[in-house]
Amino acid sequence: MPMTDEHIHPVATGLAKQTVDKHQEKQDIVLWSGWFCPFNQRIWMALEERKIAYHYNEVNPYKKEKHFLDLNPLGLVPTLEIKSKSDGSSKALYESDVLVEYIQDLYPESDEHPSIFPSDTYDKSWTRLNVQHISKKIIPAYFKLQQFQESSDQEKAREELYQGLKTLTDRVKLPFFNGDQFTAVDLSLAPFVRRFYNLVEFRDLDESKVGEKWLKYRENLMNRESLKNTSSEDQYYTEILERYLKNEAQSEVAKATRGGQSLP
Amino acid sequence: MPMTDEHIHPVATGLAKQTVDKHQEKQDIVLWSGWFCPFNQRIWMALEERKIAYHYNEVNPYKKEKHFLDLNPLGLVPTLEIKSKSDGSSKALYESDVLVEYIQDLYPESDEHPSIFPSDTYDKSWTRLNVQHISKKIIPAYFKLQQFQESSDQEKAREELYQGLKTLTDRVKLPFFNGDQFTAVDLSLAPFVRRFYNLVEFRDLDESKVGEKWLKYRENLMNRESLKNTSSEDQYYTEILERYLKNEAQSEVAKATRGGQSLP
Ligand SMILES: N[C@@H](CCC(=O)N[C@@H](CS)C(=O)NCC(=O)O)C(=O)O
Ligand SMILES: N[C@@H](CCC(=O)N[C@@H](CS)C(=O)NCC(=O)O)C(=O)O
Repeated sequence: MPMTDEHIHPVATGLAKQTVDKHQEKQDIVLWSGWFCPFNQRIWMALEERKIAYHYNEVNPYKKEKHFLDLNPLGLVPTLEIKSKSDGSSKALYESDVLVEYIQDLYPESDEHPSIFPSDTYDKSWTRLNVQHISKKIIPAYFKLQQFQESSDQEKAREELYQGLKTLTDRVKLPFFNGDQFTAVDLSLAPFVRRFYNLVEFRDLDESKVGEKWLKYRENLMNRESLKNTSSEDQYYTEILERYLKNEAQSEVAKATRGGQSLP
Repeated sequence: MPMTDEHIHPVATGLAKQTVDKHQEKQDIVLWSGWFCPFNQRIWMALEERKIAYHYNEVNPYKKEKHFLDLNPLGLVPTLEIKSKSDGSSKALYESDVLVEYIQDLYPESDEHPSIFPSDTYDKSWTRLNVQHISKKIIPAYFKLQQFQESSDQEKAREELYQGLKTLTDRVKLPFFNGDQFTAVDLSLAPFVRRFYNLVEFRDLDESKVGEKWLKYRENLMNRESLKNTSSEDQYYTEILERYLKNEAQSEVAKATRGGQSLP
């Protein structure tokens, strides 16, 4: 009987574990987090990049526990709980694309709280457009390549992934998407790039086909402190990713990919 | 031979035509617009709501003409062209969800330029979350119900649409989503509600099943000036919608719906 998604390794490891330990104090902002989840890692990175005080709270979203569903009826990580200072009540927000904007809006740009969006109005929208390109083109191809079992289907997904990465790479200014500033595009993509090693090993992913510029950009992403400090050890990711490679995962994302539906 | 999408009626009619005529002067912001397109109508409404000066430029996106693809490689309306005052160069932006944010960011809130987002940080994100709910749950169900030919598939899509509308309706404060303020949620949904008459006639859509509150809300949407002033006459919409009802449309949206893929 395949392991169910509920029985994943329960906590972060490696550098991510150290970051968790540093964020155990109560705060008005609580990250309901799954250490293993790339969407979740986006928001974890965003909080780290903007240097926002937060309380890290590990949750297993596959258990769909009532207290968690009360916060987020979709039952997905990342979920942010925002506590009111005055009356102790709390509100929630979810969906990584929305949370990135929320974290940006929390404080104006300052040395203390670096921005994750360009300040220019046009450039800010251009950044959003490319975050959407990642969500609509790159991530679905990534999950298909991981999960599809037929080699012809894998071939198609691989091409789709190369194509999505190429389109983005053409627009990258280096060292990051918008040049020197590390922004929402970079943190939306980095957690997935962190997991590419698995597709390289089992799905013939050859990133050199995307081109030299991509290799440079992906290296800059991989070296980012906020990515490293929110990353667990490879072996624990591998354990989970294997279930996708065998098309055994039962997450909402896995079911949508299997059924040819759009991602949750 | 079925009419190809290229041969749609070329221009807006009715009140929309009057609005077009009022926006023929050259401006720094050009709306490359398809009069018939609900995604496009969102942005047209946003420009009207925020009282932004714009030049209306009708384009048939199905023709995929080079000058249009140069602006938007996806070849979709709505597309905004933004002209630089200094050197006459221009930049483009597209994707209705991104454009709504751009239009908001163009000017701070004022009597002259009313906002289409709440000013409170949490409420602004909550608005975005529900715009996303519309894009991910309501719109795909709408297109499926329109296009699917088997009655059991239609039944499933209709339930999906009711469910998506119910979830949203529970959150509506009335008269609009956020109460008195007309925001991005309202303008993201209204153009589709404007086209529901077609599903009522041919797909057994019965909005009373969504509940009394929905009927009240949808009436408020339908009465909004910005919706009326950007709407053409029914018969011209019907001509286009019929091609979806027969599953003959060849737009990107139609192809994605047919193939069970996520919408472009
Ligand atoms: N659209 C969501 C996706 C989040 C998501 O899929 N999270 C997964 C873990 S990677 C989850 O919580 N899954 C629980 C489940 O599938 O039941 C986002 O961008 O935040
Ligand atoms: N995701 C886009 C969708 C826009 C869209 O699908 N526009 C249609 C007309 S309603 C279009 O331009 N279609 C051209 C084609 O399909 O070739 C948005 O939200 O702006």
